[in-house]
Amino acid sequence: MQNMKRIEGGVCAAKGFRAGGIWCGIKASSHKRDVALIYSETACVSAAMFTANRVKSASVMVTQDHCMGGRIRAIIANSGNANACTGETGLAAARQMASLIADEFAIQERDVAVASTGVIGVPLPIAAIESEVSALADSLRADALGHESALEAIMTTDTRKKSGAVEIDIGGRSVRIGAMVKGSGMIHPNMATMLCFITTDAVIDQAALDASLKATVSVSFNRLTIDGDTSPNDTIIIMANGRAENPKIALVGEDFALFTSALRFLCIDLVRQMARDGEGATKLLTVTVVGALDEETAEVLAKSVASSNLVKTAVFGADANWGRVICAIGYAGVPFKLECVDIAFSSRAGGVSVCKNGQAIPFSEENAKRVLLEDEVEINIRLGDGIGSATVWSCDFSYDYVKINGDYRT
Amino acid sequence: MQNMKRIEGGVCAAKGFRAGGIWCGIKASSHKRDVALIYSETACVSAAMFTANRVKSASVMVTQDHCMGGRIRAIIANSGNANACTGETGLAAARQMASLIADEFAIQERDVAVASTGVIGVPLPIAAIESEVSALADSLRADALGHESALEAIMTTDTRKKSGAVEIDIGGRSVRIGAMVKGSGMIHPNMATMLCFITTDAVIDQAALDASLKATVSVSFNRLTIDGDTSPNDTIIIMANGRAENPKIALVGEDFALFTSALRFLCIDLVRQMARDGEGATKLLTVTVVGALDEETAEVLAKSVASSNLVKTAVFGADANWGRVICAIGYAGVPFKLECVDIAFSSRAGGVSVCKNGQAIPFSEENAKRVLLEDEVEINIRLGDGIGSATVWSCDFSYDYVKINGDYRT
Repeated sequence: MQNMKRIEGGVCAAKGFRAGGIWCGIKASSHKRDVALIYSETACVSAAMFTANRVKSASVMVTQDHCMGGRIRAIIANSGNANACTGETGLAAARQMASLIADEFAIQERDVAVASTGVIGVPLPIAAIESEVSALADSLRADALGHESALEAIMTTDTRKKSGAVEIDIGGRSVRIGAMVKGSGMIHPNMATMLCFITTDAVIDQAALDASLKATVSVSFNRLTIDGDTSPNDTIIIMANGRAENPKIALVGEDFALFTSALRFLCIDLVRQMARDGEGATKLLTVTVVGALDEETAEVLAKSVASSNLVKTAVFGADANWGRVICAIGYAGVPFKLECVDIAFSSRAGGVSVCKNGQAIPFSEENAKRVLLEDEVEINIRLGDGIGSATVWSCDFSYDYVKINGDYRT
Repeated sequence: MQNMKRIEGGVCAAKGFRAGGIWCGIKASSHKRDVALIYSETACVSAAMFTANRVKSASVMVTQDHCMGGRIRAIIANSGNANACTGETGLAAARQMASLIADEFAIQERDVAVASTGVIGVPLPIAAIESEVSALADSLRADALGHESALEAIMTTDTRKKSGAVEIDIGGRSVRIGAMVKGSGMIHPNMATMLCFITTDAVIDQAALDASLKATVSVSFNRLTIDGDTSPNDTIIIMANGRAENPKIALVGEDFALFTSALRFLCIDLVRQMARDGEGATKLLTVTVVGALDEETAEVLAKSVASSNLVKTAVFGADANWGRVICAIGYAGVPFKLECVDIAFSSRAGGVSVCKNGQAIPFSEENAKRVLLEDEVEINIRLGDGIGSATVWSCDFSYDYVKINGDYRT
């Protein structure tokens, strides 16, 4: 994209945002931050999306309500406890988290979002957060260090910090968008276990922000699959404080398109970071389907392949077992012409066609191995049914997934 | 069930059936049988069901056609090669397999079923089968040894032989049903990678046999999930040769109910054997949902829990992480009242309630560990929505699943 550049600073890159994170005692180890705060010095418009799971955490229930106002300007998030399946006590604790921040900054409780990630069914130690809320507010910084400590405080089994920021020019003004995300397991289309917080200093209409977020999520976070499990806690929030003083972005027009494509670029980058950090992942797996009946069909097929345990273990083993790929296409439950299916594997080491017109073709196993041994691998599927295409991100499936999840809680 | 007893002999238990298996050279190792034959000395009525995958092997395509006649009396099955994605050549090879057996026994080609299991996309070495077809016919025996060698010849990653036989009394005549099954990975509801061959000496109407098989499969093989992958090759065939000389079983009546419940008992037993032999499995996992809106809802919920990688790894780690169970209930996509969900784990070591009315309840971790360390573990879910119930079988998810599938082909 012309005019867009990557910048440093994460959620503190945009003007007027500060962030911080401290240890409150929710996580057992005193060396791990567990509560994060992101705060805009001035009022915001906001948009948000939440988990599709029918079991929703107390944090999600409270925040869904608060986000209706479209004016979120502070986010408090904890790790180490999901505050899910915790009943009325959990709801009270989630409201209390919002209220503590509202009091601290003399803002409305409804302008504070709450997010949680961690173990399900354990009461949230709200007193621990209450006693540290001043320290949390004091931890706020407007620089990259503020971003980093907030980011650390929302991580659970994540092994990498996942964030980014971009700058674009709108009407001669520099507009910035920054984001942080956590999530490495329980990740699947429809907003899996992930928390994503996005800040921007754009001047933008609330309806436009909402539309931009929805359009972005459908081709980024909703096309990520790690393990097929979705969580009760998934939350994505974007806050825009207007400090860039650009001409207001409305629901239609070039500025909207520009803002949305920058947001999409940022979010797809985050999705790739998440896939690469999937629990036990050794490879980023990108599955692209082209030539499908329509985009929806392409997405269903790509997700079926990207979600298959058998495909994912084959990628882990650098085994060009395309039979499993065509198999996953076959059971996806959508129509396609088998006699037109082409499959290829590719990576920076090259490409290798393994199936043409739905049938085996001779290929060099050695060459395929070389392609699949890379740490970024693509499965390219070409159909002969139409012009629908979709890309889905996933990772391979290794011993460490089992190790990480065999005894996460104890 | 009154009057039913388990017996020995597998597919050779019923009168008039012979079976055998030899090595033809499809599998690389000369020590592994790779072609099986099951043959009835007299004409049969038959019923069959096949994979729901849109990618179907040549064997399935040919056999689906042959099974329309409802008169299958011989089954030739190979392992080591799926004969899938092999085009016209593959279809010709599958027809040839049927034709070779038809010639050998002077029966109709349409009365022979063909089944294959193994790697996808590799041409079937039909010449190897052709040159050994007499030896294959010579290997037929009417005893348990015949059953055993046929069973060996259809195994791939299976680590255990899975079979059974039962005897019931119908109208004063002893009626026998015997079966063999292969399958340990790529197994999921809707007839996963499995071959199941059933023989019976019952006198039964073809329509009754068909109805009995369908009713049985819906509560047995279609309620098994190992890894969420389904194959192009799944085939289940039942042949009835009438040698028991019982009063003919028709579509309604007590005899039909008795025959069907014996068939169901046999098939659920096979399903449990398959789940226990799931790739890398260390435990048999049984998920039962009661109190759902209806049976279909109960089945969807039970399958969602039994298919969750996170639940399966927790069971492997003997970790009472019920949050993952409720989570999988939540994303199943069907309605239920969260505030009425009760969850318990049980095994022969006892039972432990972990969630009551959708919320955590205190439980002894030590006790839960003891329950979950057993090799047969149950997750019991009680809802408050109705009287629908369903049981689904699965297994835990271990390092060995990754090991087995990371490099299966090479």
